[in-house]
Amino acid sequence: MGIKQSLSLISGQCYLLPSDDDSNEILKFLNRAKGKNIVAVQGLGFVGTVMSLVVANSDAKEYAVIGVDQASESSYWKIGDINNGVVPIVSSDPLVRDYFLETKKRNNFLATHDTKAFAYADVIIVDINLDVTKVKDEDNNIKSYDVPLEGFKAAIRSIGQVCKSDVLILVETTVPPGACQYIVYPIIKEELLLRGLPTEQFNLGHSYERVMPGPNYINSIKNFYRVYSGIDTKSANAVEDFLKTVISTDEYPLTRLKTTESTEMAKVLENSYRAMNISFSIEWSRFAESAGVDLYEVINAIRLRPTHANLMYPGIGVGGYCLTKDPLMASWASEKFFGLSDGLVSSVKAVERNDKMPKFCFDFVQNILRQYKNKQINIGLLGVAYGPGIGDTRFSPVEDFYTRLSKNFDNIQCHDPYVSRWVELDLIVETSLLEFFENSLDVLIVTTGHRDYLESDGIYQLVAKAKEGLIIIDTVGLLNLEKLPRRFVQNENFYVLGVG
Amino acid sequence: MGIKQSLSLISGQCYLLPSDDDSNEILKFLNRAKGKNIVAVQGLGFVGTVMSLVVANSDAKEYAVIGVDQASESSYWKIGDINNGVVPIVSSDPLVRDYFLETKKRNNFLATHDTKAFAYADVIIVDINLDVTKVKDEDNNIKSYDVPLEGFKAAIRSIGQVCKSDVLILVETTVPPGACQYIVYPIIKEELLLRGLPTEQFNLGHSYERVMPGPNYINSIKNFYRVYSGIDTKSANAVEDFLKTVISTDEYPLTRLKTTESTEMAKVLENSYRAMNISFSIEWSRFAESAGVDLYEVINAIRLRPTHANLMYPGIGVGGYCLTKDPLMASWASEKFFGLSDGLVSSVKAVERNDKMPKFCFDFVQNILRQYKNKQINIGLLGVAYGPGIGDTRFSPVEDFYTRLSKNFDNIQCHDPYVSRWVELDLIVETSLLEFFENSLDVLIVTTGHRDYLESDGIYQLVAKAKEGLIIIDTVGLLNLEKLPRRFVQNENFYVLGVG
Repeated sequence: MGIKQSLSLISGQCYLLPSDDDSNEILKFLNRAKGKNIVAVQGLGFVGTVMSLVVANSDAKEYAVIGVDQASESSYWKIGDINNGVVPIVSSDPLVRDYFLETKKRNNFLATHDTKAFAYADVIIVDINLDVTKVKDEDNNIKSYDVPLEGFKAAIRSIGQVCKSDVLILVETTVPPGACQYIVYPIIKEELLLRGLPTEQFNLGHSYERVMPGPNYINSIKNFYRVYSGIDTKSANAVEDFLKTVISTDEYPLTRLKTTESTEMAKVLENSYRAMNISFSIEWSRFAESAGVDLYEVINAIRLRPTHANLMYPGIGVGGYCLTKDPLMASWASEKFFGLSDGLVSSVKAVERNDKMPKFCFDFVQNILRQYKNKQINIGLLGVAYGPGIGDTRFSPVEDFYTRLSKNFDNIQCHDPYVSRWVELDLIVETSLLEFFENSLDVLIVTTGHRDYLESDGIYQLVAKAKEGLIIIDTVGLLNLEKLPRRFVQNENFYVLGVG
Repeated sequence: MGIKQSLSLISGQCYLLPSDDDSNEILKFLNRAKGKNIVAVQGLGFVGTVMSLVVANSDAKEYAVIGVDQASESSYWKIGDINNGVVPIVSSDPLVRDYFLETKKRNNFLATHDTKAFAYADVIIVDINLDVTKVKDEDNNIKSYDVPLEGFKAAIRSIGQVCKSDVLILVETTVPPGACQYIVYPIIKEELLLRGLPTEQFNLGHSYERVMPGPNYINSIKNFYRVYSGIDTKSANAVEDFLKTVISTDEYPLTRLKTTESTEMAKVLENSYRAMNISFSIEWSRFAESAGVDLYEVINAIRLRPTHANLMYPGIGVGGYCLTKDPLMASWASEKFFGLSDGLVSSVKAVERNDKMPKFCFDFVQNILRQYKNKQINIGLLGVAYGPGIGDTRFSPVEDFYTRLSKNFDNIQCHDPYVSRWVELDLIVETSLLEFFENSLDVLIVTTGHRDYLESDGIYQLVAKAKEGLIIIDTVGLLNLEKLPRRFVQNENFYVLGVG
């Protein structure tokens, strides 16, 4: 057994996993932070890290923030990077870097693996992941799904075991509606009782972020509407007081809902609504293709109506951490906590339809490429992130697509301006478009709609210089045929998914 | 066999069905209309009548409009009323009346049952209905559905049999995508050939209205975005030229799509999107009720997000002519015209879920009223129209609800400010709220969200004076508990569908 290490995806540095506690660093930090309110953030992922930055940069109140994550191979590098002065996120939002540098100046952001940090916190924000597991068949039909709660419960227990008896615990994690009431509250109470502490002083609330990890990453937390609730009125008041110090609530007023179930439901409902709307467009893209209709043109025409402005475009599929699971989480809770016999049938179906899209996209591409069967060709994929403008490959639809494609073709190169290593597939991804086009591509497949590709018409210029016989397949409707060299003809050497 | 008559729902006048043609009236009208362009509008329903008014009131061009409808018992009264100076529509939009009176001044609007009118038209606008038939079981599961085309084909043929060879035919009817190409075009061509006329001169296009028959009825046609197409470029140009004279295209630019299939699809896609979104909220209202969550509160919180501002509220169900059938029409076309094996499964399911809502609502109400079983109580339904602010009862969800309720309770009175006779059920509807409340109600069920009820807090004042033991069941989330007398308590004598 070798020494356990954690490799940073950002700095490239390798950190040995720590074998002991981190008390010294925590106490040194607290010493420097005297007089400041201590906020602990549990989970240093795409939400927790940026939430930490927003809290540490509060203008209304002086906070010292301790970010807590696990000493695991996949997570510990974030702790190392933060303490080394490297922001552990690639983002197109320059504010992320600015906010991080400011915490270094203010000396008010520490990262640690040691859950004893929770003992000193006035406020603990829960930003850990809670996943849904799916069992799918070869065609991506969902055979079953589950929400395994063990990790979540353990994380909550690690708070209860050390927290102050009057702490404010603010759950931001997307949870099955009912989780604060039926899981978090009993665990914290039980642990306080075990420590002989009063159980009526702590505050427990739920408020969810609406993080969009693109160019407005910071503002999607700081300058946006928030919904919140408390397990009781005292808790709701405590959440309100805290949020007012970190969010621009003058411009974006807070909305208090009556119960934690209500805000928990609001979160998964929001995301389910989006997943449903995408699923709707995907169903209709089949129809458009068969009727020879350009669905992008149709959708653009309809979006002029204010009531229909959020009609989604079709594409290679839905990815990311939220839309691929939240409807399932809601359905799961409706059955397990509230006895709904069938769950949320159509919301589950929407996820399934979205999950099946990469397979459909693969069939579409394979049909176009059947002429190249058993021939050596160079295929280039433009974009591996799950969506435009972000460097997040979690549950990217491109992953399923790539996996299927790679079983049929050997030479597949990938490009993404925001991803240098595709963790899920353990692949190197080219980040320079110029280098990427030196691969002498036979087929170019646009798989993520990064606007970067359109900047200064970069992609069009590179295509103009590419191999004469190049075929382009656009699975996300990014390219404009009129801007391509004249040799490109719709449905001859230029194909768009969703356009018949 | 008695003499066939047609009773006006508006003027109350009874018209004998005509036994002969209407040539004299048409020729007299044309004589007066010399120099004006003649527009014929086929179908004097909720769209055709108002479209006629908008065309006749064009500022850009002098039109004389002939509205054509059938000499049937259910339709002929509209022809009689129009020619008698009565606008055959009840609307909360005062412009409807103004526009109608203006046509009387201009003397440029004739109604007739005689399809020979089409012979004189430069432009013929098709605004007839094309229905979807559904076979449903007791629980409103959709067992099968069909789009019977005979009537539509006959109507188009009646145009082809007499129209000018260079006429512009503009189809506004919601049709299965493909209908202009595969049904209308061949029929017109065939009829022109039979008459020995050239077949390459006529123009055929499709453009759909987005009529909202509420307080902005006229403006929803005149001042709103339009999508249009032609069977070829010449036709598309002709449609564009015409629409520019009747719609405020400076402020609301027209959008031309490539094919008639595209605009036909756009129309049913728009409505399917809305039907789907309502179906989504309905699914979640089950969840909210079981989790003790107020879904209205949750939806209001979410609607603050611009991307989620069109999230629909739950309620008694979806009604009206469009949302209850358009997804089925689309699915039907995807199978019959374009060979999609399963049609649009989830769009069909959305209609089914919506159709099942009145039954669910009935179960909800029956559960509350089980204490009154076999007792004589007075039940009052507030609203029978399918939606707020309109007098349209076609496919109103209240119909299914009323039918079920009336099998269990005897004394059910209905009120609607816009409906005096409920055609589908052949019932008299009270239009005065004051008189309605004199029924000494035991149970008040709000079934249509007419804002009229809230005007000057009228409903709250009447409730305050009602019977002490009154129970209120709000199936559309119209009422505000805080404005009701203090004796009303949520889930004791005040119930809201979608609120747990």
